[in-house]
Amino acid sequence: MALIVQKYGGSSVANADRIKNVARRIARTKDEGNQIVVVVSAMGDTTDELVKLAYQIADRPDKRELDVLLSTGEVVSSTLLAMVLHQMGYPAISLSGAQAGIRTDSAYSRARILEVESRRVVRELEKGNIVIVAGFQGITDEMDITTLGRGGSDTTAVALAASLKAEACQIFTDVEGVYEADPRLVPEARRLAEIGYEEMLELASYGAKVMHPRAVELGELYNIPILVASSFNEKPGTLIHGGISMEVRNKVKGIAHDLDVAKITIVGVPDRPGIAAAIFGPLAKAGISVDTIVQNASIQGITDLTFTVTKSQLAGAMEVVKPIAESVGAGKCASDARLGKVSIIGTGMQNTPGYAARMFNALSEKKVNIQLITTSEIRITCIIAENEVKDAVRILHRAFEIEEE
Amino acid sequence: MALIVQKYGGSSVANADRIKNVARRIARTKDEGNQIVVVVSAMGDTTDELVKLAYQIADRPDKRELDVLLSTGEVVSSTLLAMVLHQMGYPAISLSGAQAGIRTDSAYSRARILEVESRRVVRELEKGNIVIVAGFQGITDEMDITTLGRGGSDTTAVALAASLKAEACQIFTDVEGVYEADPRLVPEARRLAEIGYEEMLELASYGAKVMHPRAVELGELYNIPILVASSFNEKPGTLIHGGISMEVRNKVKGIAHDLDVAKITIVGVPDRPGIAAAIFGPLAKAGISVDTIVQNASIQGITDLTFTVTKSQLAGAMEVVKPIAESVGAGKCASDARLGKVSIIGTGMQNTPGYAARMFNALSEKKVNIQLITTSEIRITCIIAENEVKDAVRILHRAFEIEEE
Repeated sequence: MALIVQKYGGSSVANADRIKNVARRIARTKDEGNQIVVVVSAMGDTTDELVKLAYQIADRPDKRELDVLLSTGEVVSSTLLAMVLHQMGYPAISLSGAQAGIRTDSAYSRARILEVESRRVVRELEKGNIVIVAGFQGITDEMDITTLGRGGSDTTAVALAASLKAEACQIFTDVEGVYEADPRLVPEARRLAEIGYEEMLELASYGAKVMHPRAVELGELYNIPILVASSFNEKPGTLIHGGISMEVRNKVKGIAHDLDVAKITIVGVPDRPGIAAAIFGPLAKAGISVDTIVQNASIQGITDLTFTVTKSQLAGAMEVVKPIAESVGAGKCASDARLGKVSIIGTGMQNTPGYAARMFNALSEKKVNIQLITTSEIRITCIIAENEVKDAVRILHRAFEIEEE
Repeated sequence: MALIVQKYGGSSVANADRIKNVARRIARTKDEGNQIVVVVSAMGDTTDELVKLAYQIADRPDKRELDVLLSTGEVVSSTLLAMVLHQMGYPAISLSGAQAGIRTDSAYSRARILEVESRRVVRELEKGNIVIVAGFQGITDEMDITTLGRGGSDTTAVALAASLKAEACQIFTDVEGVYEADPRLVPEARRLAEIGYEEMLELASYGAKVMHPRAVELGELYNIPILVASSFNEKPGTLIHGGISMEVRNKVKGIAHDLDVAKITIVGVPDRPGIAAAIFGPLAKAGISVDTIVQNASIQGITDLTFTVTKSQLAGAMEVVKPIAESVGAGKCASDARLGKVSIIGTGMQNTPGYAARMFNALSEKKVNIQLITTSEIRITCIIAENEVKDAVRILHRAFEIEEE
């Protein structure tokens, strides 16, 4: 008898019919002789509606109270799913994050899981129950309710799988898995049967919004294989795991892109210690997330500093940066809000020469101008004009064929 | 510094504006130097909507799950109220029934409070917080959420007041207090400044739907004075308490009525032991609540048995009763669905001769035909035709003047 953790996202439980559909899938897994723990998100747009309600009431809702409010969304969907399973004749019980022993720190709205005290879950499983856990929430040592922030329900599922030593962790969502590239841009892009944790992390941070990096990291830490698949059909999905063979690892696995990139360049920055801190400290204080940072080689003690932010933060970032640039004696600040980025991702690329060259070649052959380049161990990213991103994704998909496995 | 428990019903927190209004009332009580615990119901029709949602999902929703689902309604309103108070600069914290230590048995949908472990509430009060408790809910020893059924939030408030030894328990609702008679029928009916627990219990069971009998009983048990007043204005309300002076007790305090009465008469029932059990046992099993039961004096071992039910349960009751009447050799079963009842209520009436006679006289003078009579220590009730109930309330209000205090 295997223990399986399944997670169903908000669109999979958006209404009564979809909840019934999910219940049938769970029942099938149960009929196959498995023990099952199910993690659910709030129905459809429930969380957004609760946030709206809070902001109708208060300009800046108290964070502790907001977390309690939001946590009700997942409680509602968990009870409804348990009711349907009962109706179908399957013993089931819903548990809140607190009841399921999801212990967190007290960083409201973005709490981190400290521990999973899974005794109650284990007891319910032993009684033969299907255990439905409200995702996205936990409880502090003071018995206060917290929410886990972005990717919270995925994280709940992986944490439970780790704590219960589950055989499998299955994330059911509204996409069919992880693709080589965005299928809306590259119709011939194929679903990946499997992908390594780190490759998945790079894909996730670089715009393939299938699963939150945080949950993937937790999966890697505890070596939990995670299946991502659709709750709307029976296609096999993508298995994220660590057991990828050496050879398979040595490939371009996927192409990620992001259309929300703006660039600021400070020209003529004196190249001396403390300058970077003087610029990026105030940006962080202003709540502006800086993504890529590139500093060109210094010529006669003067350098150009370029960094990217999201488009919506460009104006705010310029306001912060301009007076600083002046005070450090730099030249002008230039910005460009019409950028995007495209990345090729694959474990071990850096150990295999030639990937970067092939990427730059493919782009230049099609006259795509590369403005900035950054790399990690398993990723090469080019910042290019926004209107060339879609072509670039197709060009790179073809250039790397995406290499057949 | 006094400790005050306030309870606000669903219509008092039905929307953002009303929640803000409630917050201002609470702030005022705080400004007067009091410690405050507030119990809230779910917003407006939330509970009904959640019940509807459950029945969309399942024909017979599991009771445990339904309780968890319904409990979210009060959690939502408690967090919103806490947010508004924060916004106004008042320290406040919301607690679920579980967090507030409302320990119950596990009779889902109608749990009874076993104990209030108020340590957390006390701790929050000591920190200077206004404590907002989600009403209508508790938690079992197994850490499962329960709801308290009808009158649940009133009961939460009185139980907390008892446990915390509060100076006052104030129930704010959409009526201005307890009246001598229904003001819609008797416009000149006055609000009672005070009423005894038992009188209030009779008024509550007999149609004056201001406060649930269960909460009044608990108030009597722990001798908690309960103020019932409107959350929409500043009128003084009615104080329910046990310290009513002897003289005041000796009066007709109020007139209650009920338009939802149906009658079944079984004619010619053999007057022998076990007959009543044979009839009322199966009715109870079928979930039919029998109200008044009257058995006429036996003539030659044969009696007529009459009892009342609500109109909606009449058909079901007849189905149960007919075969039984046949099997015990009774005559026919007759029913009448167009009845109502009217009661005069006052502590100590039975020790003062003449109240019953005055009631029957007043009704007969106006040609109101009395079909059944029942009495308790502090109540005399007449079952009459439904279309005469409103006149009867007015006649009795005049007949007893309602005696000036």
